Amino acid sequence: MKKLFKGVMRSGNFSTNRLDAFSDGVFAIVITLLVLELHVPVVKGPYISEELIQGLVDLLPKFISFVVSFVYISIYWVNHHQLFHMLKRADRGVFWLNSLFLMCLTFIPFPTAFIGSYPSEPVAVIFYGVAMLATAVSFVVMKSYIFYVGRLVDPNESKPSRFYLLVGPLLYVLAVFLATVNTQFAIAIYLLVPVLYFFAGRLED
Amino acid sequence: MKKLFKGVMRSGNFSTNRLDAFSDGVFAIVITLLVLELHVPVVKGPYISEELIQGLVDLLPKFISFVVSFVYISIYWVNHHQLFHMLKRADRGVFWLNSLFLMCLTFIPFPTAFIGSYPSEPVAVIFYGVAMLATAVSFVVMKSYIFYVGRLVDPNESKPSRFYLLVGPLLYVLAVFLATVNTQFAIAIYLLVPVLYFFAGRLED
Amino acid sequence: MKKLFKGVMRSGNFSTNRLDAFSDGVFAIVITLLVLELHVPVVKGPYISEELIQGLVDLLPKFISFVVSFVYISIYWVNHHQLFHMLKRADRGVFWLNSLFLMCLTFIPFPTAFIGSYPSEPVAVIFYGVAMLATAVSFVVMKSYIFYVGRLVDPNESKPSRFYLLVGPLLYVLAVFLATVNTQFAIAIYLLVPVLYFFAGRLED
Amino acid sequence: MKKLFKGVMRSGNFSTNRLDAFSDGVFAIVITLLVLELHVPVVKGPYISEELIQGLVDLLPKFISFVVSFVYISIYWVNHHQLFHMLKRADRGVFWLNSLFLMCLTFIPFPTAFIGSYPSEPVAVIFYGVAMLATAVSFVVMKSYIFYVGRLVDPNESKPSRFYLLVGPLLYVLAVFLATVNTQFAIAIYLLVPVLYFFAGRLED
Repeated sequence: MKKLFKGVMRSGNFSTNRLDAFSDGVFAIVITLLVLELHVPVVKGPYISEELIQGLVDLLPKFISFVVSFVYISIYWVNHHQLFHMLKRADRGVFWLNSLFLMCLTFIPFPTAFIGSYPSEPVAVIFYGVAMLATAVSFVVMKSYIFYVGRLVDPNESKPSRFYLLVGPLLYVLAVFLATVNTQFAIAIYLLVPVLYFFAGRLED
Repeated sequence: MKKLFKGVMRSGNFSTNRLDAFSDGVFAIVITLLVLELHVPVVKGPYISEELIQGLVDLLPKFISFVVSFVYISIYWVNHHQLFHMLKRADRGVFWLNSLFLMCLTFIPFPTAFIGSYPSEPVAVIFYGVAMLATAVSFVVMKSYIFYVGRLVDPNESKPSRFYLLVGPLLYVLAVFLATVNTQFAIAIYLLVPVLYFFAGRLED
Repeated sequence: MKKLFKGVMRSGNFSTNRLDAFSDGVFAIVITLLVLELHVPVVKGPYISEELIQGLVDLLPKFISFVVSFVYISIYWVNHHQLFHMLKRADRGVFWLNSLFLMCLTFIPFPTAFIGSYPSEPVAVIFYGVAMLATAVSFVVMKSYIFYVGRLVDPNESKPSRFYLLVGPLLYVLAVFLATVNTQFAIAIYLLVPVLYFFAGRLED
Repeated sequence: MKKLFKGVMRSGNFSTNRLDAFSDGVFAIVITLLVLELHVPVVKGPYISEELIQGLVDLLPKFISFVVSFVYISIYWVNHHQLFHMLKRADRGVFWLNSLFLMCLTFIPFPTAFIGSYPSEPVAVIFYGVAMLATAVSFVVMKSYIFYVGRLVDPNESKPSRFYLLVGPLLYVLAVFLATVNTQFAIAIYLLVPVLYFFAGRLED
């Protein structure tokens, strides 16, 4: 079974340009769809101005989750480009692992809306972390496949360190565990990760 | 009438690059729109955590239909590229048959949401199968037109076997019939088709 | 005022490739968004199967308006490409008239949902016709500007006949007038126009 | 801290083509999503025709905000292209400032729906102005960074005047202040800005 599976993955020959262009389209769309989860407050009655202000205040968690998810997707966009820029050729394994990653990526608006609606509920905070963990893991799996299994990059290209590959997923595992104790610790990690990437991430392509 | 119709189809001259790029855009959008059918559960009251968990459990059929439709669209994306890669030139027939295929493709979020909402209702399970059948048939018709009617590929290119062309549509016909007896058999086929493609599909481009 | 306006329009220099790519993106998105107006019927109770079937039957006008609008947008896509393929260069006039056309195009999902919700109401049938008329007129104005005002195409390119330019808009004017008397006549014209284009349209690019 | 921040921003090397293509995708999507805020009126009863007409009349502010936001986004699209056309190379600073600008841009459908729903409420009119101000400021910051900090354009390229950079943001500051006194003055400015750009904007690329 494992041999058959590996045989399927290592076969085929894709143009990386095309995979890249398709992925780019998905990135552009999912980052723009995030706004659709922000709904205009519906209010009536004599105190409409006060209620609209209250409505905006109530939306604050949704605004924050919109911003955080936007930044995450931007960072993934850069990392995805970096990775595909190094790729000499793609096989079926790259195609399927990229599809898996894009599936996690297109799913992001749902946990974003969920945590934005219930920012103090452990269920929602955990769910957001699990979704982000899945996205990070799918990216790391694809990257590891490209470097270590498929050997689809130039041999002179420096391999990513195991530490670098695992730090993102481990932070989300930590956040998910913390969320069971205190949701604010978990949210702090969600806000911290983009800042880490800003200062530490290799963003060259 | 038939002659006039054929005359119209065989005329014209399109750049395949452009048709391909436009189709790619549609693919990227429709695969990303699937997430919009996942709505955050709305709950209130003292047992909010329990109800949110229940809300997520209730969404399970929608999550599954999201994944299955995502995989289907990924597979069509590969097959579409493979096909258009072989195309030397396109006539009006390719344009219209491609539009018909894209129409079926953009329709997919609706049956996906439908079966996700009523996973045990024969009507919804049949409807999903019919929509998938229509998509498969429109793709096979376009492919057959390109190879057998339009002769728009290199004559050295090996023609697809009739068996290969028909196996997808026939599986959906089977699923639709089974759904009238037992919806779970039909759903099993819907889950099986992507697995078949994973192991048997020619995914080269 | 008129002179100032004309001075503004005739200035500037755009890459047509870029305008074309941007327009293509808008086309791909708007054609895919049409499906979002199809909502899964919400039913409950002991006769759920019967009600779901009834729900699908009730959606029939929406399915039809989905298909018709899809075909319209496909036809505009071809015509837009044909036009921009002939363009040697673009000035601000082309940019603004193209924006006007794209605005009408992105608006189409609204009248499509409107006529799909109230297929026998004159208001909805007239509104659909007016929206289609606006789209057709904005395209004809852009085309006329390119050929007659801006002279932005190769002088050897044959100019479109005035008859050809006006037949689309005039059919919609007719449909809007007929809708005040009998909505079915108007709907017949909406269904007829794509068929006309299929047989008579120049779809070469 | 400031030095570290500047070091991060000035590092890295991006292909401007790719940033441009990604931004184009976001532009095309957000301009097309605006229509999703227009909902078909839901009416019943014996006076359905009259109520549908009333429903359309009630949508008038939404139609207007749709048109105004469409024009704004079109103008930003041109200005963005102009700017990126001059760019010789991009660093991380351009990437992050462009992401910030795109985040403001993708947010536009929300204030558009908000002012369309409550066109006479100061809260909504101010909010629209603040959102437009944020978008304008993020664009000016990116443009200033490119010209004055990053020096990423050809030295022969004429620098934009400070007046030209500030006139847009200042108009929105004015509108926000006016909205606290009289919402109609503010709305007049929102309608005026696109007209100003039409006549005075450099739209060459």
